[in-house]
Amino acid sequence: MSGEAELLDEVTPELVRRVEAALAEETPDAVRALLANLSATGQASILEQIGEAERDKLVGILKGDLDPEALTELDEEVLEDVLDQLDSKEIAAAARELEADDAATILEDLPEEERREVLAELPAAERAEIESALAYPEDTAGRMMQRSLVKVADSWTVGQVIDHCREATDLPDDVYDIFVVDQAGMLRGSVPLGRMLRTKRPIPIVDIVDPDIPSLPATADQAEVAHVFRDQNLVSCPVVDGENRLLGVIMVDDVVDVIDEEAEEDMLKMGGVGADDMHAPPVRTVWQRAPWLLVNVATAIVAALVIAQFETAIEKIVVLAVLMPIVASMGGNAGIQTVTVTVRALAMGELTAANAFRFIAKEAVVGSLNGLMFASLLAIGVILVFGDWRLGAVIAAAMVCNLFAAALAGSLIPLGLQKFGVDPAVSSTVFLTMVTDVIGFLTFLGLATIFLL
Amino acid sequence: MSGEAELLDEVTPELVRRVEAALAEETPDAVRALLANLSATGQASILEQIGEAERDKLVGILKGDLDPEALTELDEEVLEDVLDQLDSKEIAAAARELEADDAATILEDLPEEERREVLAELPAAERAEIESALAYPEDTAGRMMQRSLVKVADSWTVGQVIDHCREATDLPDDVYDIFVVDQAGMLRGSVPLGRMLRTKRPIPIVDIVDPDIPSLPATADQAEVAHVFRDQNLVSCPVVDGENRLLGVIMVDDVVDVIDEEAEEDMLKMGGVGADDMHAPPVRTVWQRAPWLLVNVATAIVAALVIAQFETAIEKIVVLAVLMPIVASMGGNAGIQTVTVTVRALAMGELTAANAFRFIAKEAVVGSLNGLMFASLLAIGVILVFGDWRLGAVIAAAMVCNLFAAALAGSLIPLGLQKFGVDPAVSSTVFLTMVTDVIGFLTFLGLATIFLL
Repeated sequence: MSGEAELLDEVTPELVRRVEAALAEETPDAVRALLANLSATGQASILEQIGEAERDKLVGILKGDLDPEALTELDEEVLEDVLDQLDSKEIAAAARELEADDAATILEDLPEEERREVLAELPAAERAEIESALAYPEDTAGRMMQRSLVKVADSWTVGQVIDHCREATDLPDDVYDIFVVDQAGMLRGSVPLGRMLRTKRPIPIVDIVDPDIPSLPATADQAEVAHVFRDQNLVSCPVVDGENRLLGVIMVDDVVDVIDEEAEEDMLKMGGVGADDMHAPPVRTVWQRAPWLLVNVATAIVAALVIAQFETAIEKIVVLAVLMPIVASMGGNAGIQTVTVTVRALAMGELTAANAFRFIAKEAVVGSLNGLMFASLLAIGVILVFGDWRLGAVIAAAMVCNLFAAALAGSLIPLGLQKFGVDPAVSSTVFLTMVTDVIGFLTFLGLATIFLL
Repeated sequence: MSGEAELLDEVTPELVRRVEAALAEETPDAVRALLANLSATGQASILEQIGEAERDKLVGILKGDLDPEALTELDEEVLEDVLDQLDSKEIAAAARELEADDAATILEDLPEEERREVLAELPAAERAEIESALAYPEDTAGRMMQRSLVKVADSWTVGQVIDHCREATDLPDDVYDIFVVDQAGMLRGSVPLGRMLRTKRPIPIVDIVDPDIPSLPATADQAEVAHVFRDQNLVSCPVVDGENRLLGVIMVDDVVDVIDEEAEEDMLKMGGVGADDMHAPPVRTVWQRAPWLLVNVATAIVAALVIAQFETAIEKIVVLAVLMPIVASMGGNAGIQTVTVTVRALAMGELTAANAFRFIAKEAVVGSLNGLMFASLLAIGVILVFGDWRLGAVIAAAMVCNLFAAALAGSLIPLGLQKFGVDPAVSSTVFLTMVTDVIGFLTFLGLATIFLL
């Protein structure tokens, strides 16, 4: 039994360095020895942490010793790289050891032609399963589900079901629920294994079935899948077709991956980067990040145009140029606080049409109060440093306006984007900083022109 | 059987509005009727979406009809509010229906004295269980684990274990693994229920036990718990004390909540807001957000001080004031892209001492290339608009410098904070924008002073 500390430290930076050293010294036996006792997750972690050239070498050395499960844990960029080093036979051998849903995920990353070659290497039954998984779009319930499950007729007794389980030697270990179907294959409900175990043998299975279990259509998006598991605290959930016929089952451990992925996506999107950014080669990363930066150039130019309208004011009172970024940046930061809360609340379904007005009103109050607080602070500072109470009053007024605008924009922009079907995590901050820059420069320089010139 | 669409839409904005209307009309029967068929999650969702005054009214009407499970799904701020409306007897009644870990989470939010009153209302056995859960700090494995599990002696046969399960009528439905302990209560391993079901009765249980299962110490932090579940694709994990004695078991559905929470925390922290921000009353939100804004005032003032050094330059060439925010803002945005990738990679354990150098080098390359790309773009624009190639060259040089600095700061700041035990999600962006503002203004205005005056 291994303790948790040991688990967490399976792959230490030290081990990664030793693997890299062994690869550099071209000593395949030493490399194999270092990886011999690693779990699939450990192997995947090594593959992700070493450099690209070292990775190619490592895969060349391991080949068949590579745990197929490790492939399922790799980021997409790294997986493509690893698959490049394996031929169709080797990939097919790995696919045979995986569940059909995992095998499909791996095969999908292959070029069309190589995928056909790999499928041709597989026995007919496994090929059919993988092809049926590939028939569903990526990120749907149909792709995520596993097809091996315990399905029994609603006419059976508990005793018959238990005997069926005992005879089916190919039953996977991770069976937690027995699914009951009628003659047409339609799902009638499920029985947790624990409950079946303590029920008397002659009792009909339908007597102990949960009829009201949730089920997912095969076409459901993975975000919906995660939503249902999360809301209902499920361990497994049956997947059905349009006629409620049982197709497969999704297990919670696959959903954990989806939840991680969705949380990661939202965070990365808000920061203006794509998934897999870390493992992409530099040139690809340059191009992936460029569109976001281009949009930011555009919004920065809009802000610059606003400033350009006040060149005369700045020429006369150059200290305006010194102070103006403070007003803009405070608005931006306060607005990002609001955007973050709004995007997360939308993602979790906590913010809807029912409470949107109350939400926006609260943000407006918070924005105004924080605006007043920091306006006073800055006004005092400006009056002390520059000895000009009018300059202090102008920066204070601009600050209050901008933090109020930031609160409205920070909540209305994500809500509006969501309403028009645009992902609020991606574009909210760009629009927000444009608003806070424009309002910040406009109010500060505008009020200065009116009252100070 | 309910389809997934129905599940997702259980609480529609329309339903929330009807509940609010019924509350406003003071018609308790109508309110109860509207909530009668909702799941615990549905009740929680209603409680979170209605206003505070309406919530107090609703709890007053529901009282005992409130599903205790709904309490476990509420955000902390909302939970405190709901508990305020219930007396000790009512809270105790709810706690009795919950698992000890969930009851502990709820009781913890009560003031010391009221908690003692509630505990006094509980039967001794349940009180002891909840007190034992409360003995572990919040967010540890000891608090998360449930105490009801199937624990059998390593001397038993499969038949004896099955009979034991069949006799124990209080066995929960969500048993998936049987835990085997030796005479001293030390964990020897686990047997999945599915495997036991298809093993012959006379076989000793130790023959089919998985001895190499992971276990967690009761003191493990919830982030470590999530890490182990995620890495090993676990459905349940035993929790042990320092001597490896079995104390309880953590189920994956509780871990899903933790994963959500951790992902949410990182995202909210990067945006400069705390957990529970959405449901906190406005004045508390004002104070919770103020420290972040205060730090931003300080960094904005540092940037302003840099600009102040170049007042003469700006006075002579006022267009510098127009263009300088573009350089600073591009650096900030490019840097946030790097910070986001770095913080996420650190959180997922993908960025360690082993690959930090390669990671930083890649960011530096990406920053330089994006810098060159946007420097050229801006230089062309500036030359076309202002007809001054020297101004174009100055802004281009400043842009390259600032995006290179942003890449270094964006990766080094989170890595450095992590090294010194500071949470990189919280403080990275503040330090980053200070760096990119200072470098942006300094290079642009500095180069302008040297080459244009």
